This record gives sequence, C-alpha cells and structure tokens, in this order.
Amino acid sequence: MNKIEAAQLADLALGSVFLATGGGGDPHIPQLIAEQAIEKYGPVTVIQPQDVADDALVVSIGGVGAPTVSLELLPSIDETSRTLSAFEAHIGRQVDAVASFEIGGGNSLIPLVAAVGKGIPVIDGDGMGRALPEAQMMSYAIAGIKPTPAVACDYAGNQCAFTTSSTEVYERHIRSFAMAAGGMITAAEHPMSGAELKRSIIPGTLSFSIELGRTLRENRGQVGQLLEPLKQVFEKSIYGECRLIYQGKVIDKATRIVGGYDIGEATIQNFDGQGENLNLSIKNEYLLARVGEAVVASVPDLIVIVDYETGTPINAERLRYGHRVAVFAIGCPDFYRSEEALRVVAPRCFGFDLDYIPLEQL
Amino acid sequence: MNKIEAAQLADLALGSVFLATGGGGDPHIPQLIAEQAIEKYGPVTVIQPQDVADDALVVSIGGVGAPTVSLELLPSIDETSRTLSAFEAHIGRQVDAVASFEIGGGNSLIPLVAAVGKGIPVIDGDGMGRALPEAQMMSYAIAGIKPTPAVACDYAGNQCAFTTSSTEVYERHIRSFAMAAGGMITAAEHPMSGAELKRSIIPGTLSFSIELGRTLRENRGQVGQLLEPLKQVFEKSIYGECRLIYQGKVIDKATRIVGGYDIGEATIQNFDGQGENLNLSIKNEYLLARVGEAVVASVPDLIVIVDYETGTPINAERLRYGHRVAVFAIGCPDFYRSEEALRVVAPRCFGFDLDYIPLEQL
Repeated sequence: MNKIEAAQLADLALGSVFLATGGGGDPHIPQLIAEQAIEKYGPVTVIQPQDVADDALVVSIGGVGAPTVSLELLPSIDETSRTLSAFEAHIGRQVDAVASFEIGGGNSLIPLVAAVGKGIPVIDGDGMGRALPEAQMMSYAIAGIKPTPAVACDYAGNQCAFTTSSTEVYERHIRSFAMAAGGMITAAEHPMSGAELKRSIIPGTLSFSIELGRTLRENRGQVGQLLEPLKQVFEKSIYGECRLIYQGKVIDKATRIVGGYDIGEATIQNFDGQGENLNLSIKNEYLLARVGEAVVASVPDLIVIVDYETGTPINAERLRYGHRVAVFAIGCPDFYRSEEALRVVAPRCFGFDLDYIPLEQL
Repeated sequence: MNKIEAAQLADLALGSVFLATGGGGDPHIPQLIAEQAIEKYGPVTVIQPQDVADDALVVSIGGVGAPTVSLELLPSIDETSRTLSAFEAHIGRQVDAVASFEIGGGNSLIPLVAAVGKGIPVIDGDGMGRALPEAQMMSYAIAGIKPTPAVACDYAGNQCAFTTSSTEVYERHIRSFAMAAGGMITAAEHPMSGAELKRSIIPGTLSFSIELGRTLRENRGQVGQLLEPLKQVFEKSIYGECRLIYQGKVIDKATRIVGGYDIGEATIQNFDGQGENLNLSIKNEYLLARVGEAVVASVPDLIVIVDYETGTPINAERLRYGHRVAVFAIGCPDFYRSEEALRVVAPRCFGFDLDYIPLEQL
C-alpha cells in the first residue's frame, strides 16, 4: 500500500478502533478532518518502515488525554499541522515523515492529517500495535528512544515544549499539560532517526487496520458470522490468536476522569442471565477481563468489545448500560511479550496483582 | 545602592519575608545559595529601572509552587542559572538583566543568584511589591507584558517551554507543570524590554527590603517597640499606612495543597482571651483578615504576621498552633489600587464576596 485515499478512511477508522481496545480517542472528527485534508492535498503517501532512510527524521504525533474528553473538546481543524510546525520550529529542522503513537481511532487518523498537509509520508506502523494509556508503554520508549524534544498544542494554539530524558517523567508532564488545557491536546514527541524507527516500530499496522476494517464492514452482522473472517485476518498478521471470549449485555459501566485518564469498570452479563458475569477494568483502554475470579484476558493482549448485532467495535467512552456486545481477545504482537516490554505493560504496571499469562496459555 | 554584598542577604531575606505577606517561599536555602554565589562571583550588581536601556532584554525569574513544598523539595544549587540558560537557549538571545516576580523570601533571592552567575545586574524592584499567588497578578502582566516565551526547570533539570499570549492560561500551564514536577519549580517568564520594564515594575523594592530588614533587625524585640520604627520606614516608601491590627496567639491553622497552592485558614486569639478572634484566609499569602465579621485588612493591601517576641516575620507555611504573634497591615503601592490592577487582585478575584476598601479607609 502506497497511498491512503479518502474512501479508505472509514475502514481505517473501523479497524483501528477495533485494535484500540477501547481507547485511542473517538475517530469521528479526526476522520472528517482527514477527509477534508485529503480533498485539499490529495491522497496520503504511506511508506514502509524499511524504506525510510536511516538518517531521516521521523516524529510520532497524536492526541493525549482522557478519551471521554475527545467527545466534547473537539480538535481544531489546524491543531495537528500547527503542532507539527511548532515542533519543527522548536528543533529548527523539517521532519521527513510522521508515525502514530498507537493504532487507535483518532490517533490513527491524526498522523495522516499532519503528513498530507506537509507533503511528507506517514509510516505504515505505530508505537503500540494497539492503544495503551501511557507514553512509556510505547514501543519507541521501550526500545530506548528519548521522548523529547516534544511539543504539544491545545485547540487554541497554546504551546508547550518539553525536555527530559525519561519517558515516565515526560508522561507526567504531558498529561498535566493536557489536563491544564482542558483534557485533550495534540503532541509531537519521540523524534527518531529512520534507523531508530526500524528497530522500535510495530510495523504494518496502518495497512492492517484498513484490511481489518474492510473485514468488519464486509461481514457486518451478528457476531457469530464475524468470528471466522476475523480469525483468518489475524492469522496472517503479527498478532496472536483471536478468541471470542464472552457475549452479553452491559449491566454496569462507570468511569471517571482521574489524573487525565478515564478510569473505571464495566460488567457484562450473559444473555441468558446464567453463569458468571464478565468484569472489565478500564484505564482509557480495556485492560483486564475476568469471568468471576478467572482472568480470561489481560494487557498487553487486546480486549475488544463490539456491538453484538453489527460487529462494530465500541470505544470505552461510548460503552454504556444496555449495550448488547461481544468481547474478543487477541494475542498482542511478540514485541510486547518481551521482558523489556512487560516491564512497563504487564498487569502489575496497572496495579493488578497478577502475572501476565499470554492469551494462548489461558 | 549599586551592589548587594553577602552581608546584606540576611537583611534582604528578613525584609522581603515581611513584604511577602506569608508567601514567596522560605528564604533559608535560597539565601545559602546566594551567599555561595556571591562568594564565588563577587557582589551582585543592582540597577535602578530608570537606568536600564530601553532596548535591553529583561526577564523575571523565580520559584513557582506551593510554599509548603519549598520546605521539603529544596532547589538544586544550579537550578536558577540552569533555568536562565535554558531560557536564553530557547529564545536564542542573551538576557541583559533579571528582575523578581515578587518581593518575597526565596523569590527575592533567586534573581540575585541568576544575575551574579551570568555577570548581569538585577533590577531594583519587583513585579508585585509584595507576594501574590498567581502570575496574572504581577504588575508586568497587568501592564500588558506577555508571559511567554517562558521556560521552567525542575530540580532534576527537566524543562518545559511555554507559548501563550494569556497570563491566565500561562498560570494554569506553569502551575500544572510545577505540580507534575513535585510541587516547586523555577521559571523565567514575562520577558520584556527596558522600556516595558519601566512602565510595569514596582520600583525600589529590593533596596527597600534591605532597609526594612535592617529596621527589623535593629529593633528586634517585643512588637510594641517595633511599631514606631516600622511606621517611619514605611512613611518614606511607596507603601501606604502601616498599622498594628492584632496581637495574640494562633489557636488554629490549617492549610492544604490544592491545585498547586497552599490554601487554608488561621485563627488568632487575643492574649487575654477576650473579644473576637482574628481570622485569616490564606492562598499561599495572607489575603483577608477579619475580626468577627469586620474586615480589618484585605488583599491587595499587605497583611503581615510577625513573632510577638522578636518581630521576625512568619511565612504562612511556618505559622503554627501556639505561635504568639502580632499582625500588621500596610497599604499596598498605588499601582495595585488602579482599576486595571484591582480587576485581577481585588478580594473577589480570590472568591471573597466583598469589595476592596483601602486600609486607610477601614
């Protein structure tokens, strides 16, 4: 895939919301902005990580904040390009390509807007292979890329430039700026050379999202019919096994914005009311799924909720009482099962008192 | 006064804590750092605002955070000069002189450290004529100086550069950075030309603090003996009337760190236990003094608490149950009684449902 056309954005949004495991931000407004940008500038050029020059300058760009806020505090139309321009002004050099923080709804679309406006390519890949709530959980950070120089802009054009060598410190600083700016901002961060990109990015997730989105669209309908096509798509991918782990009705959902994250829980009950409920723990993303006391899937593996009747993935900020849903779990890319990655993304990093067991062994 | 020697720092700390009206940060560690800097580089050059070239570049520098934190999260020895250097690197130009945010304990001493290390002068004056809790309350901001480019550093050298045209927005951003960095940071902000400095600074407060500190030192002893010398010092100054408004014992004091400020109240009871108590409202500084329902002094006038036996001023973060104290009130400089200033520093700006009445009319 060399180009992304406007007509592919709906599939990209659909597929990337699936991979976002509840987070990543609502894609609706970013999709409209991306459509407008492509109409103005033409299709987005996509480049494979291995085709990026080793000495090229790549920066990752996306939204930071509590996804709930993305439903109300809409990005301004030029927020993305303004952020990239402010980043270039700050470092005194032009950027050669942009990459995603995470494959996730809004955050899959924002880099496209930045790229097309500047006439530079977007990288086919991302920094998580899913969505995760904190900056140090990105593959770039795990692979040792420094988070700064980084620049963030809010909807009104107010800016903040960060300098630190620790992504954990950066996460505190950028998160507090997001909160001070109303809950959601756009950031350009983790600048890296092409060589660094190649050893840190989760490759191919942009084109995979479009393929996944097409599968979801073409098999739109009750979840039973979706499972086989989904399994086939994931089988050929960098992801692990795809399992349907639960079906039922949301009987409880509560999140609060705490420290700039959406934090809370959801409970899903079997359609027949028999057997044990599925309990989900949420920090922006769906992190842990338990049926009774038994863990059925946990971060960094993907937990995905889709509408039972249509197979449309549902972001955590849109999940609500009464939703009839199916819950999928998908093994994460191997990168996130390494010792280095699990040091920052294992269940304990989120306060859950349990070890990570890969989905396939559960 | 053309120079500040190490021997004058104790008087400066004493006088500026008096003018700080409870805030401004504890001066002990900044005084030690300033002594060391003067020992290394020689006395600090002081320049009067009117002697600054109109096209000179001046920046204000100081600590931002909750003063309580300044007792525990100590500044690193090179935090001040590192902040100024980071500011110069950010704007790509050297600074010609530095000024204080506020005359107040630590924040009177920090600019001296920055100045002497760079071999540039410090301005005789400050941006408040006292201490006040928020950036938009500075005379620089009231006179229309933009808050940014501004750069802040924490004790560990992590940096943040801010860009906004609104000091209210800047205050939110810098405060949230201070909180994220542990509660106290050093900032260089409100850069201005010499011409802008002349129309916005509260002049002469650095030399006045030293004179005031000397008066406090030479008249150290029970408050009754201090009142007359104090009145004489203030009579020749830009400040209004100096009144002794209460004497007694602290019977209650409670502050919490809320949103990066120390917020709370203190109650002082007459020594004889008769009559009504004095109630003080605190937001970093002592803002409102009431005896029963009657307002006896309010912001922007100065409310100052001193130790009853020695006349030593007591910062809010050090005030505690059982302290025997005297409470002074001093009319603020005329600048702060203007309509423009009262728009941001009147009692209502702090949530008190009352109009400002100058001390002399109470």
